[in-house]
Amino acid sequence: MNQLLDLVGIFVFALSGALVGVRRRLDVVGMAVLAEMTALGGGILRDLILNVRPAAFTSTGYVLAPVIATGIVFFWHPHVQRVMPAVNVFDAAGLGLFSVVGTEKALSYGLSPLHATLLGVTTGVGGGVLRDVLSGQIPILLYDRQLYAVPALFCSAVMAVLYSMDLHGWPATLAAAVLGFGLRIAAMRLRWRAPLARGVASE
Amino acid sequence: MNQLLDLVGIFVFALSGALVGVRRRLDVVGMAVLAEMTALGGGILRDLILNVRPAAFTSTGYVLAPVIATGIVFFWHPHVQRVMPAVNVFDAAGLGLFSVVGTEKALSYGLSPLHATLLGVTTGVGGGVLRDVLSGQIPILLYDRQLYAVPALFCSAVMAVLYSMDLHGWPATLAAAVLGFGLRIAAMRLRWRAPLARGVASE
Amino acid sequence: MNQLLDLVGIFVFALSGALVGVRRRLDVVGMAVLAEMTALGGGILRDLILNVRPAAFTSTGYVLAPVIATGIVFFWHPHVQRVMPAVNVFDAAGLGLFSVVGTEKALSYGLSPLHATLLGVTTGVGGGVLRDVLSGQIPILLYDRQLYAVPALFCSAVMAVLYSMDLHGWPATLAAAVLGFGLRIAAMRLRWRAPLARGVASE
Repeated sequence: MNQLLDLVGIFVFALSGALVGVRRRLDVVGMAVLAEMTALGGGILRDLILNVRPAAFTSTGYVLAPVIATGIVFFWHPHVQRVMPAVNVFDAAGLGLFSVVGTEKALSYGLSPLHATLLGVTTGVGGGVLRDVLSGQIPILLYDRQLYAVPALFCSAVMAVLYSMDLHGWPATLAAAVLGFGLRIAAMRLRWRAPLARGVASE
Repeated sequence: MNQLLDLVGIFVFALSGALVGVRRRLDVVGMAVLAEMTALGGGILRDLILNVRPAAFTSTGYVLAPVIATGIVFFWHPHVQRVMPAVNVFDAAGLGLFSVVGTEKALSYGLSPLHATLLGVTTGVGGGVLRDVLSGQIPILLYDRQLYAVPALFCSAVMAVLYSMDLHGWPATLAAAVLGFGLRIAAMRLRWRAPLARGVASE
Repeated sequence: MNQLLDLVGIFVFALSGALVGVRRRLDVVGMAVLAEMTALGGGILRDLILNVRPAAFTSTGYVLAPVIATGIVFFWHPHVQRVMPAVNVFDAAGLGLFSVVGTEKALSYGLSPLHATLLGVTTGVGGGVLRDVLSGQIPILLYDRQLYAVPALFCSAVMAVLYSMDLHGWPATLAAAVLGFGLRIAAMRLRWRAPLARGVASE
């Protein structure tokens, strides 16, 4: 079941990557490459840190899902100018799913709750950072004034708490992921903002 | 023999890195750093994913080859303005060699042909992506309209097929690498292009 | 003791990351994320290459030090415009400490002096490169005309020599780190410069 959630996360991140590719006027190959990297980057980083062979290099579905996502975006997307809202929604879904699944995997490999939470956040944000850096933008993780890392941190921490209470079937995982997704969407909609350092003028 | 092909790949990628350094007006130290990273980046990523100690940290030749390449570029290159064609040729050679050698190493570590091909492409493009990101450009892998990932994918897949037919001596490896190199050069010369998504105007 | 030096390196790199965050007008969350990545990036890369679980994912202090550094920068920094000198000093301290501690750890894991030196440099420069790439700048490692990689290389090599002479208590480590720090500061102060390739005009 967790593998299914992981696959959904891969698919939505791949959609966000392919859409950024459209926005940056990449051809279909560039779109597919960006989709693969966005979708698989966070999980590969997670597995390297856990010192296991990355799941992306053992599962066929993980490799093919981004190809399918690219095809959908390639044929279906007529309104190129209106891409960003869709990128943000798919990215939020991937963020929630990957953070929570990453935290759970880290806990099952014996990391402390603190470090599992940190690795969950890393998993959640890794693919998006790679996508943004490769497409020549400052990562949304750093520059988005409407909270990006905080929802990832929050739902990862919730997952770590649930796990320590022995609640780690898929309903718990899904609930925590939806929480992370909802928080991120709410932060964008309601324009929640973190403070700037003293003396830094808001733009 | 494969180690020799790897070394040739390191050398040509290092030349491309040092030349990009010249183009970006880096000093000799910056050139050497960029050469090392371009040359060793793809292979280090491959070995991390295979969960073995990176070859770059066990072989002396791998570390010294980029230094020699930097020296050659530093003293020999008189026409700074004309650097890009040379970058592209050396990069194409590295792309072919690294993709094929990476695929073969992945197969010998028990990855499936699909995943070995993916890791071969990763090895082939990794150093160039690192070079481009570090020097402040959008990676040629994404933005080059004249097919970059496709030749890497094609020659990696050919290597995987040859390997499964028990053809994995150095002649097979070299042939597949030359195929990748030739495809990439042809794509540039003949301006082969992948399609853009619907609604994206070609520039 | 080495763990303490590592922690000091983490703290000063985190300060440099948080300060760059101020300079790029990031909010407090972005500052914390950049501080964590700058502080932990080099060590994580080192440990991945050595094939051990990254120290950042086992130690609590390593994760919390960047949070504290972010708090200090957030409340204390009144003169946003004058940030760069402080970034450079903290970065130089981190560079020296991480290079030397990285070299020593690599030697204790059986790498040759040449490769341990290379991994020391990687550890020293890794966090700063990540910081610069994520904040949308060409890494200081490549573009700074006033020697950045050379001090890291020099103090790593000195550490490797000391180690081979069986001098690897903390006084030796600290001395080599201070040497690296001093060299980097001197290079900035005295404007030591590495040569450009022939035909490249100095700006």
